[in-house]
Amino acid sequence: MSVLFPRVALIGLGLIASSIAHAARRAGVAGEIVGYDVSGDVRDTAREIALCDRITDTPDAAVVDADLVILCVPPGAMGSVARQIGAALKPGAILSDVGSTKRSVIDAVMPYVPGNVSFIPAHPLAGTEHSGPRAGFASLFDNRWCIIVPQEDTPADRLQMLQDFWQALGANTEVMDADHHDRVLAVTSHTPHLIAYTMVGVADDLGRVTDSEVIKYSAAGFRDFTRIAASDPTMWRDVFLNNKDATLEILGRFTEELFALQRAIRQGDGDHLHAYFTRTRAIRRGIIEAGQDTAKPNFGRGIEDVSESKG
Amino acid sequence: MSVLFPRVALIGLGLIASSIAHAARRAGVAGEIVGYDVSGDVRDTAREIALCDRITDTPDAAVVDADLVILCVPPGAMGSVARQIGAALKPGAILSDVGSTKRSVIDAVMPYVPGNVSFIPAHPLAGTEHSGPRAGFASLFDNRWCIIVPQEDTPADRLQMLQDFWQALGANTEVMDADHHDRVLAVTSHTPHLIAYTMVGVADDLGRVTDSEVIKYSAAGFRDFTRIAASDPTMWRDVFLNNKDATLEILGRFTEELFALQRAIRQGDGDHLHAYFTRTRAIRRGIIEAGQDTAKPNFGRGIEDVSESKG
Repeated sequence: MSVLFPRVALIGLGLIASSIAHAARRAGVAGEIVGYDVSGDVRDTAREIALCDRITDTPDAAVVDADLVILCVPPGAMGSVARQIGAALKPGAILSDVGSTKRSVIDAVMPYVPGNVSFIPAHPLAGTEHSGPRAGFASLFDNRWCIIVPQEDTPADRLQMLQDFWQALGANTEVMDADHHDRVLAVTSHTPHLIAYTMVGVADDLGRVTDSEVIKYSAAGFRDFTRIAASDPTMWRDVFLNNKDATLEILGRFTEELFALQRAIRQGDGDHLHAYFTRTRAIRRGIIEAGQDTAKPNFGRGIEDVSESKG
Repeated sequence: MSVLFPRVALIGLGLIASSIAHAARRAGVAGEIVGYDVSGDVRDTAREIALCDRITDTPDAAVVDADLVILCVPPGAMGSVARQIGAALKPGAILSDVGSTKRSVIDAVMPYVPGNVSFIPAHPLAGTEHSGPRAGFASLFDNRWCIIVPQEDTPADRLQMLQDFWQALGANTEVMDADHHDRVLAVTSHTPHLIAYTMVGVADDLGRVTDSEVIKYSAAGFRDFTRIAASDPTMWRDVFLNNKDATLEILGRFTEELFALQRAIRQGDGDHLHAYFTRTRAIRRGIIEAGQDTAKPNFGRGIEDVSESKG
């Protein structure tokens, strides 16, 4: 792969930025990678592990002469960072981000984007439960989706360059508008995360079942909830505050359905429960057919991890 | 391993019974394995794949002279099966089960257990999203927990024999009383399953986000919910009907917490969200330290499956 951008700047050096750095090096698509993080400790770590070619001590210094600048900070910090770097952006540069919400990021960043810079938001659907500059790895985006959200005036060639970049990092790209992105993610990610956080919080707070029992018998279903409830607290706080309307809408639907099932349990309405549980099997089959998961009995995990579905 | 039981009878030939058959053969702990299922199709399949040494056409025929009889039917069918086999049980035999609820199974089965038979309920915490006699495999119970629920009058040597059997099948065993079992499972399994079923049902029922989008972007968190929501509908209907009180209690706690988080989102209370999400990380660390899951970035899955925790 040839160099797509002579200089790439990463603002915020957590899991996603560090994975971008590794994946861009693997693909050879960035001439030079410059990084900045608001935390001095993180900058020290990044220097120590040679995450980027150069780490700067201010955000505006990082973006000087950069052809692609990617904001990799939590959604709530996007506006502040954009304000600090706006004037230093190179004419003709592409400014992008990796935020989990898109409408709020656009509203926060747009005021600081000079007219000669193309702001093209993006959201790679990839992550782990780990955070920080040491958490990244080159294959994080392989075969994952990256949703790209062009603006009305985004030039087609700029859009193509950003798509090429993410594809070079291993991702599949999809173009979507901001509001639709926020709705889709409220269903597939934001509400499931909130529910998982809630269930783990409840389990942690019970008198009659000990924490050690919860941990010991977690493989009976609870364990999958703990994995998604271990994600970065700051990022997820910002996700919910910045995708408030779509998340609250889906949550409303969720509690409505949950109450109907709760009533069926209380009234002993087995037919209602059976019909509901039969319907949800179909969507699972769709996911396996779409290649988004494995149907293997052990879910592709080690032999010690085969017991998600037994009561 | 030497033979622990000259004859073992399995009543109901689904995922768990077929895995018991494979695991018992692997360990060499059963002299002869006899099986029965209420479905003629399932019996035909079991004969075709030689799942057991012998398949009978009635439940009482299967248990004749059996030293260990294991009821592997959904919780709601336990009582009816016990009624059919009670009189045919061999004096001195051990009767056990694999039901996901324990108090209700004891109440349903006990009236049909002759005085010279030891009824020792059990619950192996193992399963997959697949059902039926072809779904079983010998390693299903390896390094999983099997909770054993002796009665007040269970002889110590009988309890030991059943523990030896499950350990020979690969499981770790733990002794617990029935009510405590039902409470622990309500937290670690039953309520998480109900929540997962609900979330998948909601996603399947939305107008503005298509099913294909839900499936395509499922790896952002939703996918783990679909896996647990693909489990056997009949078994799970029976679980909720038979562990009603404990499940409703945990559900009440869950909705209380969920509403508090929902209000925090609506009011923009980021501190509340951040504190909650920070607390839930600790329980995840406990699970990894207890060896119940992997901390690897890809969760021990294939490279295509690394993106559970990103919004």
